[in-house]
Amino acid sequence: MNTTPEHLSYVLRLADTALILGQRNAEWCGHGPVLEEDIALANMSLDLIGQARLLYTHAASLEQTLTGRSRTEDDYACFRSEREFANYTLVELPHYGPLAGTARADRDYAVTIVRNFLHSTLMEHLWSALTASADTQLAAIAAKSLKEACYHVHHAREWLIRFGDGTDESHRRAQAALDYLMPYTREFFSADAIEASIASAGIGPKTSDLETAWFDDVRAALDEATLTLAEPVQHVSTGKHGEHSEHMGFLLAELQSVARQHPGATW
Amino acid sequence: MNTTPEHLSYVLRLADTALILGQRNAEWCGHGPVLEEDIALANMSLDLIGQARLLYTHAASLEQTLTGRSRTEDDYACFRSEREFANYTLVELPHYGPLAGTARADRDYAVTIVRNFLHSTLMEHLWSALTASADTQLAAIAAKSLKEACYHVHHAREWLIRFGDGTDESHRRAQAALDYLMPYTREFFSADAIEASIASAGIGPKTSDLETAWFDDVRAALDEATLTLAEPVQHVSTGKHGEHSEHMGFLLAELQSVARQHPGATW
Repeated sequence: MNTTPEHLSYVLRLADTALILGQRNAEWCGHGPVLEEDIALANMSLDLIGQARLLYTHAASLEQTLTGRSRTEDDYACFRSEREFANYTLVELPHYGPLAGTARADRDYAVTIVRNFLHSTLMEHLWSALTASADTQLAAIAAKSLKEACYHVHHAREWLIRFGDGTDESHRRAQAALDYLMPYTREFFSADAIEASIASAGIGPKTSDLETAWFDDVRAALDEATLTLAEPVQHVSTGKHGEHSEHMGFLLAELQSVARQHPGATW
Repeated sequence: MNTTPEHLSYVLRLADTALILGQRNAEWCGHGPVLEEDIALANMSLDLIGQARLLYTHAASLEQTLTGRSRTEDDYACFRSEREFANYTLVELPHYGPLAGTARADRDYAVTIVRNFLHSTLMEHLWSALTASADTQLAAIAAKSLKEACYHVHHAREWLIRFGDGTDESHRRAQAALDYLMPYTREFFSADAIEASIASAGIGPKTSDLETAWFDDVRAALDEATLTLAEPVQHVSTGKHGEHSEHMGFLLAELQSVARQHPGATW
């Protein structure tokens, strides 16, 4: 199979989205609302970081073929700048929502859960489609990641319903988190040259082809959770094009601080 | 004048304490409780960062003489590790206090003000003593910094009294901030080989010799503010020996992130 720059970009998008959500959710480590959730979140972060590692390693082999440049998973994760990261904006947002203070430790678990639900529901469909990728390495990663995504959906969906259909306060917070985060899901489905290229090469689906199935899943869970959808917004966030929110720089500074303190270190 | 390793260490302690408090207070930039305070805090951060620059440049010349190693102010600020920083623990603590959430944006202005008061009151005495330093370059830096410290005391003292002698809520928060921060001032006055060395060389005072004057100033302001002192604690924090609180790594990751992303860059 001939590789292309778009193919590499696509794999990096998947990798970056997994890494950044993994890093973000790891902030709950030691701070979970109950011990079991603390451990569950940390484990799901490890799933996501594991996916990112496989994808970065695959990206490295694609880049080697394309340009001869030799990079490692750590080079991608720890030594690229903000504008080179191509994750969805959704996954870089802090855990605080519109109701909390604007602070790291003002984490709102409803924001965490609603984001995980919206994202993992997409990934369940996307990994499923990617198991048929013409890129056999990507297909193999998809098969492994699909199992993890299924559990992530299961976890987030259960809490979403418990929050939405729970107390007045938990309902209010889940609804606020949904109103806040839902607009960022538009970015999942916005078409561009990278997706057109990988779709025509049989590497992956057009994500817009997954939108109906995703939305049906979302709608069913929201109905069960007695949560409602606001009017759609027109704005489309641009993280996958490297244009990020103001939160991304702080996240990367923390994520990359050890590697950048010790460039070239091995352990 | 012959320089010594202790002399260099002492100048770096002064520099690091100024830099780290400057960085910490700069977090208020754009978030001050009122516009004038926002600007005042930012200006005082610039004073502190300016002091740090002069001190680092002086340290560089001392180190060059001592070891032949050539470093710049940026090398000290941006490319040393946490354990190499010798600032007082007090100045690295976040702005949230015991009453707020444990979060960056849960900044409590009472914590900011009480810290600035306790620290700048020391620096007024310390810079004053250092104007007579046998190290003429340090004496010159002290003369400049003393004027800034006088304003810093003036600013913090006025707010301290306004808070303490204000509403029940402002009093409660100022008292809580004082109870929280006062124990960290013990580190100012703990003796060690570095201070003994620079004192015997006429470079600077033993800080413990300034304690009575400092405490008289603190006590007078607290009386005016109707705030009270809790029983002293025995624990002495250890930032000046390079052993920092858990907050220091996050502060440095942010402070150093741009320089470490672009090592060797000039602008």
